[in-house]
Amino acid sequence: MNRWDTSRLEAFSDGVFAIAITLLVLELHVPPAAFDNLWRGFVEQWPSYLAYATSFITIGGIWMLHHGVFRRLRYANTRVMRVNLGLLMAVSFLPYPTRLVAEAIDHSSAERAAVVIYGASLLVVSSLFGALALAIARDPALLAPGVDAAEVRAIVNSVRPNLGFYVALIVLAGFAPKVAAFGFLVSAMVAVLRARGDSGEPDPAGGRLTPSG
Amino acid sequence: MNRWDTSRLEAFSDGVFAIAITLLVLELHVPPAAFDNLWRGFVEQWPSYLAYATSFITIGGIWMLHHGVFRRLRYANTRVMRVNLGLLMAVSFLPYPTRLVAEAIDHSSAERAAVVIYGASLLVVSSLFGALALAIARDPALLAPGVDAAEVRAIVNSVRPNLGFYVALIVLAGFAPKVAAFGFLVSAMVAVLRARGDSGEPDPAGGRLTPSG
Amino acid sequence: MNRWDTSRLEAFSDGVFAIAITLLVLELHVPPAAFDNLWRGFVEQWPSYLAYATSFITIGGIWMLHHGVFRRLRYANTRVMRVNLGLLMAVSFLPYPTRLVAEAIDHSSAERAAVVIYGASLLVVSSLFGALALAIARDPALLAPGVDAAEVRAIVNSVRPNLGFYVALIVLAGFAPKVAAFGFLVSAMVAVLRARGDSGEPDPAGGRLTPSG
Amino acid sequence: MNRWDTSRLEAFSDGVFAIAITLLVLELHVPPAAFDNLWRGFVEQWPSYLAYATSFITIGGIWMLHHGVFRRLRYANTRVMRVNLGLLMAVSFLPYPTRLVAEAIDHSSAERAAVVIYGASLLVVSSLFGALALAIARDPALLAPGVDAAEVRAIVNSVRPNLGFYVALIVLAGFAPKVAAFGFLVSAMVAVLRARGDSGEPDPAGGRLTPSG
Repeated sequence: MNRWDTSRLEAFSDGVFAIAITLLVLELHVPPAAFDNLWRGFVEQWPSYLAYATSFITIGGIWMLHHGVFRRLRYANTRVMRVNLGLLMAVSFLPYPTRLVAEAIDHSSAERAAVVIYGASLLVVSSLFGALALAIARDPALLAPGVDAAEVRAIVNSVRPNLGFYVALIVLAGFAPKVAAFGFLVSAMVAVLRARGDSGEPDPAGGRLTPSG
Repeated sequence: MNRWDTSRLEAFSDGVFAIAITLLVLELHVPPAAFDNLWRGFVEQWPSYLAYATSFITIGGIWMLHHGVFRRLRYANTRVMRVNLGLLMAVSFLPYPTRLVAEAIDHSSAERAAVVIYGASLLVVSSLFGALALAIARDPALLAPGVDAAEVRAIVNSVRPNLGFYVALIVLAGFAPKVAAFGFLVSAMVAVLRARGDSGEPDPAGGRLTPSG
Repeated sequence: MNRWDTSRLEAFSDGVFAIAITLLVLELHVPPAAFDNLWRGFVEQWPSYLAYATSFITIGGIWMLHHGVFRRLRYANTRVMRVNLGLLMAVSFLPYPTRLVAEAIDHSSAERAAVVIYGASLLVVSSLFGALALAIARDPALLAPGVDAAEVRAIVNSVRPNLGFYVALIVLAGFAPKVAAFGFLVSAMVAVLRARGDSGEPDPAGGRLTPSG
Repeated sequence: MNRWDTSRLEAFSDGVFAIAITLLVLELHVPPAAFDNLWRGFVEQWPSYLAYATSFITIGGIWMLHHGVFRRLRYANTRVMRVNLGLLMAVSFLPYPTRLVAEAIDHSSAERAAVVIYGASLLVVSSLFGALALAIARDPALLAPGVDAAEVRAIVNSVRPNLGFYVALIVLAGFAPKVAAFGFLVSAMVAVLRARGDSGEPDPAGGRLTPSG
């Protein structure tokens, strides 16, 4: 048996989430040529703002879920440490597909590929979060006193419909990339609106990360 | 009822504030052509320094206010978590309008738009901070033992004149963008000078974030 | 005798690790010319992904080792503070050789030099981690109650074969840079897979950072 | 009287120090034209490495001093909060003059100005650190139980010779900028070597940040 204290794991994860979420702003800029009519130049960057908001809210939602899971733990084991490192790697990768979407929207030949790549990245993040919850559910000895293993299994179950929803949006992106791009934004907002606190009554809606697809 | 522990919320928020404040430096640079006379090239970047200092001091002031509010809480609820995420999104967006101001000042057709966009961003940050304090004031069960609900209402009230002041500066920016740009700097400095600690006598000046407009 | 509290040292180190690991994403981008066929453009960036994954997993592994060592300490001394600062300097330098590898692979005249420089940087990181463990092993008064000095010496010993392995890969890079580049990825993955928790039975495999060379 | 808890102040300051120190790496790069002979291209970037190492070690030294001061406090007051914010602003500004030095060395007309601007920035950082220690020494009620006010005054005194040394190096930079640039590196290294822990015997050398000028 091996045990890892969760406080440094949380601090390190919070650092990565906070940095990934804040680096997104570096992708926003108005090209110098657009300074002659800065109002229009500013508005024309809307795909960047869409991508920025979607990634920001997605990472924020993952952070809230992560917070909710780790509050229920006393220890982490090595498997949890590894899967968490994989999740952090996927989260800190997100600024890259975010930038691809921002640059590719309205560029007819590229926007399809960019939105599909973006959706696939979100699917990986979401799957790794599910794998993290699963790794925890497998080892009830990790849970803090008074935490029921059913609570963690509920989190695992809540992520499942979510994966189906991302797959559906990725398929949609092949036909209607702009619609799918807004779908990812809505899905991130729903995830934040459904996130639940550290304690309290069970969520009647089942705490799903996104509407089931 | 739902409850969130505030310590990870504070750690995550501190991370975002610290990163947003430090990323501002990436916008500062002397163009290669100006290296032949670096003294002049360095001085000619004054709009960048103005924008840097204003955004740095504004974020620093928001951090001090944030610190002051969360020290008074025992828990956060889900509404507070969401509004806080919105505030972090607005704060981490600031480097973008900061860069627009730095690039647009002395570029006659663009400086008006840039300073108005910048002021509008500060107005959003300030409004979201007010909404955060309001969300807390609505639920006295969140307060730490011994904290009076009136303290938090005082914070809500203190942000109000502030919003009027930002609106006035945004209007001014339409006529005199450079004057308005310095107005935002002065307003940020006043906010830091008026910030109050975790405990002590009530602030006789009412703890306003900026002079009322 | 002098003593430093380890909690701020850990917080500062976690900050540097988290930032260095997250900044790596800034090196990923598809050149504008490749947007006409974004699928191909995305795939052609594979050397960037290889370099990203290798550096991410290497820093993640060093973080896990660092966590494992500092959990066993009650205090740091000034020597530990200095060596740790050197280790952080080497870790936060890594995004630079990472970028060199990403840009140089498939650029026949440069890839050899880039992979050798990259390997040398990893060797420096690994040596400084060994020096950190050695500095701790020299002063048993730093250890937390109940920690055996043999545990820390085991960590020192576990890093040694590792150094030989890096030297071997650097030599290999002079002949077959692409093979060596994948070798660094495998070596980082092995390090993460072998990392052990804060407590528990001794690792039968000896807890080596990488397979011995 | 007003009081601020120091734990969030330390966390926020650590965040800014960690980010400023890690952002320095973004300034390092080999120009694409130099990839034909990457060995030479890598070595020719030596002014960047000098600037990187100097700024890294300087910020690391300031962090160690900051750690040493705040460990001795029970509370901060509003003056300390403000001066600390000023210090963080100066520290997070450092990547900008660091980049100027890296770009200007060997560019005969610019290197003098760049090194003088760099030295002036270090002088501001050092002065603000002195002002922070002075603000603490003025209010003995802030000190943690068992801390002697003389300890903090000793820190104030230790920064003074330092300021003279920076002034001397800035003057030197007007005649021999390369020599002065190495002087700043040596000075940062001496500061780290002289930093003392949280407790222990008084430093016989007086704990000076740099050799007196």
